[in-house]
Amino acid sequence: MNKLDVTEAIFIIKNEKSLKWQEIADGIGKSVVWTTSACLGMNSFPEAEADKIISYLGLPLESKQALMEFPIKEWDKAIPQDPLVYRLYEVVGVYGDTLKEVIQEKFGDGIMSAIDFSMEVDKEENPKGDRVILTLNGKFLPYATW
Amino acid sequence: MNKLDVTEAIFIIKNEKSLKWQEIADGIGKSVVWTTSACLGMNSFPEAEADKIISYLGLPLESKQALMEFPIKEWDKAIPQDPLVYRLYEVVGVYGDTLKEVIQEKFGDGIMSAIDFSMEVDKEENPKGDRVILTLNGKFLPYATW
Amino acid sequence: MNKLDVTEAIFIIKNEKSLKWQEIADGIGKSVVWTTSACLGMNSFPEAEADKIISYLGLPLESKQALMEFPIKEWDKAIPQDPLVYRLYEVVGVYGDTLKEVIQEKFGDGIMSAIDFSMEVDKEENPKGDRVILTLNGKFLPYATW
Amino acid sequence: MNKLDVTEAIFIIKNEKSLKWQEIADGIGKSVVWTTSACLGMNSFPEAEADKIISYLGLPLESKQALMEFPIKEWDKAIPQDPLVYRLYEVVGVYGDTLKEVIQEKFGDGIMSAIDFSMEVDKEENPKGDRVILTLNGKFLPYATW
Amino acid sequence: MNKLDVTEAIFIIKNEKSLKWQEIADGIGKSVVWTTSACLGMNSFPEAEADKIISYLGLPLESKQALMEFPIKEWDKAIPQDPLVYRLYEVVGVYGDTLKEVIQEKFGDGIMSAIDFSMEVDKEENPKGDRVILTLNGKFLPYATW
Amino acid sequence: MNKLDVTEAIFIIKNEKSLKWQEIADGIGKSVVWTTSACLGMNSFPEAEADKIISYLGLPLESKQALMEFPIKEWDKAIPQDPLVYRLYEVVGVYGDTLKEVIQEKFGDGIMSAIDFSMEVDKEENPKGDRVILTLNGKFLPYATW
Amino acid sequence: MNKLDVTEAIFIIKNEKSLKWQEIADGIGKSVVWTTSACLGMNSFPEAEADKIISYLGLPLESKQALMEFPIKEWDKAIPQDPLVYRLYEVVGVYGDTLKEVIQEKFGDGIMSAIDFSMEVDKEENPKGDRVILTLNGKFLPYATW
Amino acid sequence: MNKLDVTEAIFIIKNEKSLKWQEIADGIGKSVVWTTSACLGMNSFPEAEADKIISYLGLPLESKQALMEFPIKEWDKAIPQDPLVYRLYEVVGVYGDTLKEVIQEKFGDGIMSAIDFSMEVDKEENPKGDRVILTLNGKFLPYATW
Amino acid sequence: MNKLDVTEAIFIIKNEKSLKWQEIADGIGKSVVWTTSACLGMNSFPEAEADKIISYLGLPLESKQALMEFPIKEWDKAIPQDPLVYRLYEVVGVYGDTLKEVIQEKFGDGIMSAIDFSMEVDKEENPKGDRVILTLNGKFLPYATW
Amino acid sequence: MNKLDVTEAIFIIKNEKSLKWQEIADGIGKSVVWTTSACLGMNSFPEAEADKIISYLGLPLESKQALMEFPIKEWDKAIPQDPLVYRLYEVVGVYGDTLKEVIQEKFGDGIMSAIDFSMEVDKEENPKGDRVILTLNGKFLPYATW
Repeated sequence: MNKLDVTEAIFIIKNEKSLKWQEIADGIGKSVVWTTSACLGMNSFPEAEADKIISYLGLPLESKQALMEFPIKEWDKAIPQDPLVYRLYEVVGVYGDTLKEVIQEKFGDGIMSAIDFSMEVDKEENPKGDRVILTLNGKFLPYATW
Repeated sequence: MNKLDVTEAIFIIKNEKSLKWQEIADGIGKSVVWTTSACLGMNSFPEAEADKIISYLGLPLESKQALMEFPIKEWDKAIPQDPLVYRLYEVVGVYGDTLKEVIQEKFGDGIMSAIDFSMEVDKEENPKGDRVILTLNGKFLPYATW
Repeated sequence: MNKLDVTEAIFIIKNEKSLKWQEIADGIGKSVVWTTSACLGMNSFPEAEADKIISYLGLPLESKQALMEFPIKEWDKAIPQDPLVYRLYEVVGVYGDTLKEVIQEKFGDGIMSAIDFSMEVDKEENPKGDRVILTLNGKFLPYATW
Repeated sequence: MNKLDVTEAIFIIKNEKSLKWQEIADGIGKSVVWTTSACLGMNSFPEAEADKIISYLGLPLESKQALMEFPIKEWDKAIPQDPLVYRLYEVVGVYGDTLKEVIQEKFGDGIMSAIDFSMEVDKEENPKGDRVILTLNGKFLPYATW
Repeated sequence: MNKLDVTEAIFIIKNEKSLKWQEIADGIGKSVVWTTSACLGMNSFPEAEADKIISYLGLPLESKQALMEFPIKEWDKAIPQDPLVYRLYEVVGVYGDTLKEVIQEKFGDGIMSAIDFSMEVDKEENPKGDRVILTLNGKFLPYATW
Repeated sequence: MNKLDVTEAIFIIKNEKSLKWQEIADGIGKSVVWTTSACLGMNSFPEAEADKIISYLGLPLESKQALMEFPIKEWDKAIPQDPLVYRLYEVVGVYGDTLKEVIQEKFGDGIMSAIDFSMEVDKEENPKGDRVILTLNGKFLPYATW
Repeated sequence: MNKLDVTEAIFIIKNEKSLKWQEIADGIGKSVVWTTSACLGMNSFPEAEADKIISYLGLPLESKQALMEFPIKEWDKAIPQDPLVYRLYEVVGVYGDTLKEVIQEKFGDGIMSAIDFSMEVDKEENPKGDRVILTLNGKFLPYATW
Repeated sequence: MNKLDVTEAIFIIKNEKSLKWQEIADGIGKSVVWTTSACLGMNSFPEAEADKIISYLGLPLESKQALMEFPIKEWDKAIPQDPLVYRLYEVVGVYGDTLKEVIQEKFGDGIMSAIDFSMEVDKEENPKGDRVILTLNGKFLPYATW
Repeated sequence: MNKLDVTEAIFIIKNEKSLKWQEIADGIGKSVVWTTSACLGMNSFPEAEADKIISYLGLPLESKQALMEFPIKEWDKAIPQDPLVYRLYEVVGVYGDTLKEVIQEKFGDGIMSAIDFSMEVDKEENPKGDRVILTLNGKFLPYATW
Repeated sequence: MNKLDVTEAIFIIKNEKSLKWQEIADGIGKSVVWTTSACLGMNSFPEAEADKIISYLGLPLESKQALMEFPIKEWDKAIPQDPLVYRLYEVVGVYGDTLKEVIQEKFGDGIMSAIDFSMEVDKEENPKGDRVILTLNGKFLPYATW
């Protein structure tokens, strides 16, 4: 089994058992965003979480190696097209220079890490229409001089 | 004066007076992300804020029309290269499908608006290295059927 | 069955029964543009419409999950080539700035939503050659300030 | 004067006199979409309309040749980025195949012309948020056989 | 059978019977360019021609629906590479602005239709090397004003 | 003066004297397509024609070197956007494989030269709408074997 | 069998018999570059050479039609990546303008044909490292005027 | 003066004195291809040649530094368009895999250097049309193992 | 077996035997970077190393030809996306001009070979976080003049 | 003065004084790679180094702000063309997957930082041709789970 096979197996079980990503995440004790990304093959499971998800979902034991494999993180569309994903790309395009100004004003010359990084999705109920609250949390890395 | 001229004028004054974006934002009573984006020409000032920033920074009166003009929101690099901005693009690429799964599980078929939208940058002090907290807040828009 | 399988199944039945999209749309009580897009897998069926189209066309019951699945909306050619679709792209290219001027003059700074959105195709008979009347109807979304 | 110079001259006068595109269109007796596109240099003025707009706006006489010149219709961004224009591109991407199915079902094998073509923008007031109504009207051109 | 299957079937029969495109075109009473393009799946057969080519080549009856299907006209290489096709692309690149000047001088502001259009290939014998004579014949479409 | 300067000078004189490309071509005894392409800087004038056009239009003598210079034949848009030029590109895309089949059936393995090449534009009057007749005439070049 | 099948068959036989391209070329009495390109499917075999290679290699008789078929000359990577091929592309990039200057100084306005063309690869032994001698030989084609 | 300024100065003097590249090359005792490429700014002059060309052409002394500067070797069009240069690119595309097979058969696994490299252009007179003989001469570099 | 088959076979054995690349490299007496690249099919095994790896891993004998085959060195993503590889691309982008200045200051006009080249990866333990030490070692190739 | 102005001023002084990058680096007590990158505008000078370089080179005092400004790190050619830089890009392409395997085998799932990063260039004298030794030193960042 490779990572793709495991992802397909997870989707089949998830549909059959009508599970939500939130439930799977709770089942292994991790957050829903990280758990989903790892199930989609974009993050590697540490051994403990690999064991838990095999047990929780009833995955075959030979999926353990693929779950723990370090993924190649690539995406199909250099410019995304699905409207939900495109809107995030648009935010990066429209506000990229702004974020550079504001982050570097607060922290100095450097970047927000996308590796030492986590992310959450929350729902804010609102009579005019519910709101998606997306929180990115990344370590600030200052540029080295040498 | 066009929007580009006004942006340059703001940078010159900001440097001369050693102002921070946060101070300018406080001076006009708006958040620092929105204020910076509007000063960079990626958002339009409502009339009240245009008056306030002209007064706060001492901009020429003829900049008012340009400040209030509706901007063309375009960016140079379809795939950004500056490391700070690229990391955000990478997050969209790596986690795009994950966010689609998680948001649509919580909200149904639809998207997070990038128009009815706001964003904040916060600093979380941490002995292992401070962390950037970036919060996106967008209205959920369900797809229409007809 | 995934969305692609269901689309193929619909095409086979449509050909066998010599059905038109208009008849399928009438059969489920929705408009022809929306119905066609949902059958092509670019929109998700609400449960009631999924039940109706299964019944109307005689689709297998296991297609229901795929019909209701939230689609990934992507397209093959970033610049379309089929002449019918290219002409629409050309209209966007030639008239894009014009529409920005006219819509924002009428509504203020904001956009026409492509999510809270519907579209109709009509035929206007004309002795010099019939005309295609394409009507897009989208909610105006004003840009937020914060 | 070339077309670009005339467009700039029109913007200056329009701003000085606080004119709307609608008023300029009414002043020359054409629709607002066509008038705006011709002022932006994407359509050529017939002689009568060139005379009228020179007189209505007080443009210099030497602008007449440029107003009547046949434009080169090109656009900067093969994939548009401004959110208002991108949403239209997204509609073409998401609904392109649908429109091909529906138009060709109604009309036969052919296309909607983007040349023998007109377009209107209307505002539909709505308590949940006003709506943009965009109507495209193009001659159907059947493919030749020979 | 889809259009691609029919094209393959035509090639097999054409090779087995050592037929030329010219003979197939004569067999159905259409020109060789149009007939070849329709056999390659880039044009749709009207019913009479579909019947004739099925009879002339001995195609299976179930190919009729695919022959009459309206094609999606797409091509693989946005910039063609095969030398014969590239030379045509080069002519469009080198002489595009020239043709715009000359056609619009003769006809006014508008275009040559690629839909209400036909094309012929002739051979001119010449002792210095035979010459290819390629004739494009398209309806002139003047731009609308409204 | 470089080729671009000469092209601009020709346009100014052409406009002042209200000359047509056809008249300039007749004035130097060459065809209108070639003459226009050479005036636009996409072909080099042989010495005799350089002398004639200088005399016919009253160009400065120092333009002779630029008129005779061998041009760099390049174009801006790899995929053209102006509708008149795009339609020609579309013809190459839609009919490229067809032309390869038909030309090679008539001539053998080889190409139509775009160098030993000429082109004409004619107008065919037609009550349903005049037609553009575009004739390309290129030497057939068979592939070498060695 | 199509051209791709024949190429694969040739590779299998070449490996089994430990033949070199030079030997195959000698076996059919053509040069090694042309023979290799024809075996890779980038040139068509004249009938005599098709017969010879079938006999020399022991190819199946049904490969004759594919060997003689006129190829579609296309390549995968618009910008090549394999280091050997990239170096040739780099030479074209770095020395393209130089070659234009030098060839047109020697020959007048025109090009070197890539169709009436041959190429050889030689090895020059050299104590500091052997050298590859690549010789391109193409007919000069002067631009037509008309 | 930078490299671009020097190139322009060389062109002006070359035109005024009606010099050929071959004469300039002879004047400094180098080949015409290398001399032209260095004059176009794609190679650096060693000090002796810089002195000679300054003296031969009468260039200003301050051009010496720019002549000797190490160039940035870049080109505008990733896919060249000028027909003379495109034909060379086409040769690389069509024969790239062939050259890889033939060179590696003669030399082993490695490449032809584009750095330890020279090139010549010769004219072969031929009653059917003169021929361009282009000779590339590059050191073979075997891949290292370690 | 082709190179891809052999790579897959190596991965299967490596996983079954829980071998590290370092162990395989030690097993054949080559460095870990070169061994891994050759196992991934990006370098060719000399005969001795082919024999050793077949014996060390227990590969089938028929893999020898594929192991020794000269590879086509191509990669999927012209701009890499996997974060580990992208960071290296970013280093080339950010520091490319710097490296050109520094290398050419130390060595003269020329390049670092990517063919006569080796590379090592080392781990430097560090209490603040271990460091990756990547060492590239390439022969300096001076540009030829001729 | 902006960063570009300062870079130009540094080049002028460097040329006038015939300084090497190594000397400038020694003059401010930093490494030559970092110093060159900061002078080229790809890194920001800390205040102490800004003061030192102003004093060492005799830069105008108003350059201090630009020297300390946080740069936008962007590059012109997504795929570099200058041969020295391209070879580095080629190394990333050819060895990217290899480096991923080897680094992650030594360190676990994560990346080498391009921010907490330094680089050195050394010259290794060698009778067969000197060698460039390029050493990259980046902190290993393990992927977070959450």
